Amino acid sequence: MISPIGDQVLVEELPPEEKTETGIWLPPTREHQLKKGRVMSAGKGLWHLGTSVRISPEMYPGDIVLFEAVGVALVEDAGRKFVLVPQNSIRAIYEYDN
Amino acid sequence: MISPIGDQVLVEELPPEEKTETGIWLPPTREHQLKKGRVMSAGKGLWHLGTSVRISPEMYPGDIVLFEAVGVALVEDAGRKFVLVPQNSIRAIYEYDN
Amino acid sequence: MISPIGDQVLVEELPPEEKTETGIWLPPTREHQLKKGRVMSAGKGLWHLGTSVRISPEMYPGDIVLFEAVGVALVEDAGRKFVLVPQNSIRAIYEYDN
Amino acid sequence: MISPIGDQVLVEELPPEEKTETGIWLPPTREHQLKKGRVMSAGKGLWHLGTSVRISPEMYPGDIVLFEAVGVALVEDAGRKFVLVPQNSIRAIYEYDN
Amino acid sequence: MISPIGDQVLVEELPPEEKTETGIWLPPTREHQLKKGRVMSAGKGLWHLGTSVRISPEMYPGDIVLFEAVGVALVEDAGRKFVLVPQNSIRAIYEYDN
Amino acid sequence: MISPIGDQVLVEELPPEEKTETGIWLPPTREHQLKKGRVMSAGKGLWHLGTSVRISPEMYPGDIVLFEAVGVALVEDAGRKFVLVPQNSIRAIYEYDN
Amino acid sequence: MISPIGDQVLVEELPPEEKTETGIWLPPTREHQLKKGRVMSAGKGLWHLGTSVRISPEMYPGDIVLFEAVGVALVEDAGRKFVLVPQNSIRAIYEYDN
Repeated sequence: MISPIGDQVLVEELPPEEKTETGIWLPPTREHQLKKGRVMSAGKGLWHLGTSVRISPEMYPGDIVLFEAVGVALVEDAGRKFVLVPQNSIRAIYEYDN
Repeated sequence: MISPIGDQVLVEELPPEEKTETGIWLPPTREHQLKKGRVMSAGKGLWHLGTSVRISPEMYPGDIVLFEAVGVALVEDAGRKFVLVPQNSIRAIYEYDN
Repeated sequence: MISPIGDQVLVEELPPEEKTETGIWLPPTREHQLKKGRVMSAGKGLWHLGTSVRISPEMYPGDIVLFEAVGVALVEDAGRKFVLVPQNSIRAIYEYDN
Repeated sequence: MISPIGDQVLVEELPPEEKTETGIWLPPTREHQLKKGRVMSAGKGLWHLGTSVRISPEMYPGDIVLFEAVGVALVEDAGRKFVLVPQNSIRAIYEYDN
Repeated sequence: MISPIGDQVLVEELPPEEKTETGIWLPPTREHQLKKGRVMSAGKGLWHLGTSVRISPEMYPGDIVLFEAVGVALVEDAGRKFVLVPQNSIRAIYEYDN
Repeated sequence: MISPIGDQVLVEELPPEEKTETGIWLPPTREHQLKKGRVMSAGKGLWHLGTSVRISPEMYPGDIVLFEAVGVALVEDAGRKFVLVPQNSIRAIYEYDN
Repeated sequence: MISPIGDQVLVEELPPEEKTETGIWLPPTREHQLKKGRVMSAGKGLWHLGTSVRISPEMYPGDIVLFEAVGVALVEDAGRKFVLVPQNSIRAIYEYDN
């Protein structure tokens, strides 16, 4: 499977839920619209230039995350489509994997 | 419940108070208009690149904060709407939770 | 009372003094016009990313300061209006509180 | 063979695979289109200004990578064409070399 | 007297000398025109974020300095006008105070 | 001979080779066109602000390098023309000097 | 004599040499045209924010330098005109003073 570089996370996008129930509210202009997806794998993290320590992204395979479509790239692997998302574009964890 | 990433805070927006009493004054153009909200949860903080130490946001669930609508994202969870606010957009604590 | 976050200072604006006596001179365009105000309270300071030390603003309640209207936000508390001023926008201490 | 400087990687571009099978999905506007290539050699890495430690790129000759055409330069060596790709423009490792 | 914050210096502007003798040459466009002034007092300096050490400006009361009108603010104290000058806008010491 | 300051390298530009054989391929727009040259001398390097260590450029007199015409300056010494090239504009070493 | 602040160097501009002999070649557009001058004195250097160490400019009185007219300021002292040049605008030492 495709291995993200640095602080990126490979995500499989999920359909938005029904609006009449719980789900992601669509904000008006000037505010960020979030997408939902399941984490497939994460990169080894970015280097901290001051300490030369490397910190991994804080989300794990199976977690459901909310992310913005900023700096993302679409990839296809074995017929399935995924999104490469920089950690900065992930705003929240919607549901932890058990 | 939704878990904010990094230095973000999950906030439930509150209605502005009456203008004739105490409340938030609406500034003219060129100055920042603040919104009021109750903190629901906070992220684990941003990493300091020079020391690789992580510092949590300085507000806690129940605190009432004043924030700008800069970099915020709207989310919905179990039918309730919340705002994801980066700590930099929180200008002051209006009232500490007891 | 409202508690400023980070390196902000809560200031109560004061009227400019008479121009014919001492006071704040109004500069022509391209130069910064300063406002005068009394410090009410200060935030806990910004974190230094290289040392993870936190340095408080260097002004105290009662000091009279000269500040620019850059990045300020107006708030109202118990019927009185205040200004949240980032420390960078404070240019000088006009008069120390005794 | 040409030796990349710093955090650059010398890559031989590969043809995109068939779209009907597995392969790289072509994203609509506003999203990054990735290219595929085989790593030929890598630079010695960038210096970390805070620690004066040097960190090499994390890809090795033979790896297949997905990269954006940002900051790349085309070179020719012994009749073959290659691409000099800054590590920041490499988004993922598509397939590790065995 | 007004106390400058950070790396600012309080300066009393001096008239430019005669052009036919020694003095400040007026450069053509694209080059910086300097002003001359006497240092009244200096701030406590800026914090170095990497070491949390504070370094004072390197000019003292009585020194005559050459400065650019970049980022300056005009203030009036006891009927006299002064200029608050960030240290970065001071280009040279014209004459040390004895 | 002229001594470059900091991380600059003094380069004598070489003619591009024949296109039908090996050589530098001319890329289409949006991609960087490289030039070829022989290193004459190199500066003492840039200071690392975090450690106050100085790191020299990694190319030596006699090496053939590929560089972009970004930030370069042309100089003439004893009738020969040279190019001052910042290390960041050097993309690769084409051939090491033996 | 005027004392430059920080990493600036006080330079007396020299006339360009004859073009038919050795000298400074005038580059076409998009490339930097250099000027030649003799160093009169240098500032005490810039502070390194990470170590709070101060590093002096690497040129000494009497050296002939090549510099760009970027960020320079013209001053006059005892009837002679000089140029204040930030070290970053000095590209090379043309001739060391013996």
